Amino acid sequence: MSNQKLFNVAVVGATGAVGEQILKLLESRNFPVKELKLLSSARSAGTKISFKGQELTVEEATPESFKGIEIALFSAGGDVTKALAPHAVEHGAVCIDNTNAYRMDPNTPLVVPEVNIEKVSEHQGIIANPNCSTIQMVAALKPLQDRYGISRIIVSTYQAVSGAGSRAIDEMLRQTQAALNGEEVNPAILPVGALPVKHQIAFNAIPQIDKFQENGYTLEEMKMVRETKKIMGDESIQVTATCVRIPVVYGHSESLYVELKNNYDLEDVKQLLADAPGVTLVDDPANQQYPLATDAAGKPDVFVGRLRRDLGSERGLNMWIVSDNLLKGAAWNAVQIAEHIAKG
Amino acid sequence: MSNQKLFNVAVVGATGAVGEQILKLLESRNFPVKELKLLSSARSAGTKISFKGQELTVEEATPESFKGIEIALFSAGGDVTKALAPHAVEHGAVCIDNTNAYRMDPNTPLVVPEVNIEKVSEHQGIIANPNCSTIQMVAALKPLQDRYGISRIIVSTYQAVSGAGSRAIDEMLRQTQAALNGEEVNPAILPVGALPVKHQIAFNAIPQIDKFQENGYTLEEMKMVRETKKIMGDESIQVTATCVRIPVVYGHSESLYVELKNNYDLEDVKQLLADAPGVTLVDDPANQQYPLATDAAGKPDVFVGRLRRDLGSERGLNMWIVSDNLLKGAAWNAVQIAEHIAKG
Repeated sequence: MSNQKLFNVAVVGATGAVGEQILKLLESRNFPVKELKLLSSARSAGTKISFKGQELTVEEATPESFKGIEIALFSAGGDVTKALAPHAVEHGAVCIDNTNAYRMDPNTPLVVPEVNIEKVSEHQGIIANPNCSTIQMVAALKPLQDRYGISRIIVSTYQAVSGAGSRAIDEMLRQTQAALNGEEVNPAILPVGALPVKHQIAFNAIPQIDKFQENGYTLEEMKMVRETKKIMGDESIQVTATCVRIPVVYGHSESLYVELKNNYDLEDVKQLLADAPGVTLVDDPANQQYPLATDAAGKPDVFVGRLRRDLGSERGLNMWIVSDNLLKGAAWNAVQIAEHIAKG
Repeated sequence: MSNQKLFNVAVVGATGAVGEQILKLLESRNFPVKELKLLSSARSAGTKISFKGQELTVEEATPESFKGIEIALFSAGGDVTKALAPHAVEHGAVCIDNTNAYRMDPNTPLVVPEVNIEKVSEHQGIIANPNCSTIQMVAALKPLQDRYGISRIIVSTYQAVSGAGSRAIDEMLRQTQAALNGEEVNPAILPVGALPVKHQIAFNAIPQIDKFQENGYTLEEMKMVRETKKIMGDESIQVTATCVRIPVVYGHSESLYVELKNNYDLEDVKQLLADAPGVTLVDDPANQQYPLATDAAGKPDVFVGRLRRDLGSERGLNMWIVSDNLLKGAAWNAVQIAEHIAKG
């Protein structure tokens, strides 16, 4: 690869939980980087981060930061993306955005490489990375959609606190130690940092991720509904989601009920998932083997198990899907897209 | 109540997590006890327990232990019930069994007072207390069944470790402290004490509660399927369950998708649940209020919230149900039945 094209890359939100994973992946994947620019808010500017043995200094992200940048990876919140991505595009960069800012924009491809990588070519400067809980679900469902068709999805999630950022992880660990000591837990961040009411996450399950919408669903639940239809390219798929935060650090788990359009063979479904790219089948009840968040943490794959027929309906299938929300759910999916672009 | 009939009561499994709660309730509810006999395995015999200021000594349970006993509350495992309940019945006792031993026996009523208290009168010596995860679900669904009819239920659970007994609680707390210290967690009990493979419960979600059946479902999941149909008196109700253990001490949470037989009015559903006996409606998204395990712990009620229409089907309803698995899910439901019998 000595004569491979190299790229000027910017990582916006370099000091965040996802940005950190993106940098690790660019390094471990030996991404063809010419120059790497680390960007953040004014607050985190000045932070030193080492990349391939070099110490880089994080700079405050401004519209001018993107001069000469060819690929920009955004994971600093929707407002930052909205404020800066258009400037990055003007400067000729392709933006891969990990926020909710452009996901439902009809002119922005919403991409999970295992599902719809071909959409990347339609981008107009920005490619959106879907929500973590959506990515792992559609990656596991794609082979079933292709073979049998999917009419409806009913999903309940068991989501890790790392999805709410590094401070939420700190809060959970602090609360947990306090609870073990019999002290007050004093919730300060979860369920939603920007909202007034706080709930204990230690030894609890909180059925709220992100803000409530007028229809009674949370934004996280509506992301799963809308993004799934867009990524799978089928507005007729019925999706109902209940998103719940539980005391797990890394790895979202999902309990899915899927109604296929045609009768299916369970062994064929297992084979399809065993052969699916980016998917690892862990489904051996006799030996108590199934996907677990603690096993998925730190790994790029989507793990699927507990596959079983619905007892009531011929076309109903139950499954359990687990993946690292910071990797396939965020950083890895974004870097996969960047690698696709780099290959040209 | 001075001339109220008093009863000779036996509590089998008096030293267990559920037995402890039963004794607390018999005391706090001022149950009409003449003599109280505390029974257990040989291992726990000799333990001293105070009841209404009296110190009682736990005796080893034997067939002869039930002479003169009028009401016997069993929560010492299915094998103990099978071995001893028939002797208790011979001695004239009415047995309220909290195990799985007789739940599906056609001659044994399976009772949740808010749903089918009338079945108590059909008992032939034994009345079965349903599984914890089933009790809270049917208590919340009963008013919807009466008004609209229920065609199907798809439930995913978030179950507390106390459902696996006191030793499981100790294990989770020990594992959690070890994980916080960066030490090995060394799983020893969960997911199923009697099975060889163990998994970490600290900061994890384990999609196995009880043993796997040939159809790929766990026994816990099949209990929810079978018991729900029997308690609600309708074999046509389709039930699919995914049962998951999470790092919570007390309080099972459940994410339900319910398909009603008729179109419904959401405000009417909320009113039905607000008025339902034993049910507390906690459903105020604007103020981030919904049922939480930490709030339900130690309370007898079943808490319901997150009520919202399915976006795809007219008759689909999503709800979030939480209750203390040791109280309404076990001890309180059993004591409610005992009180009904005591009233005569």
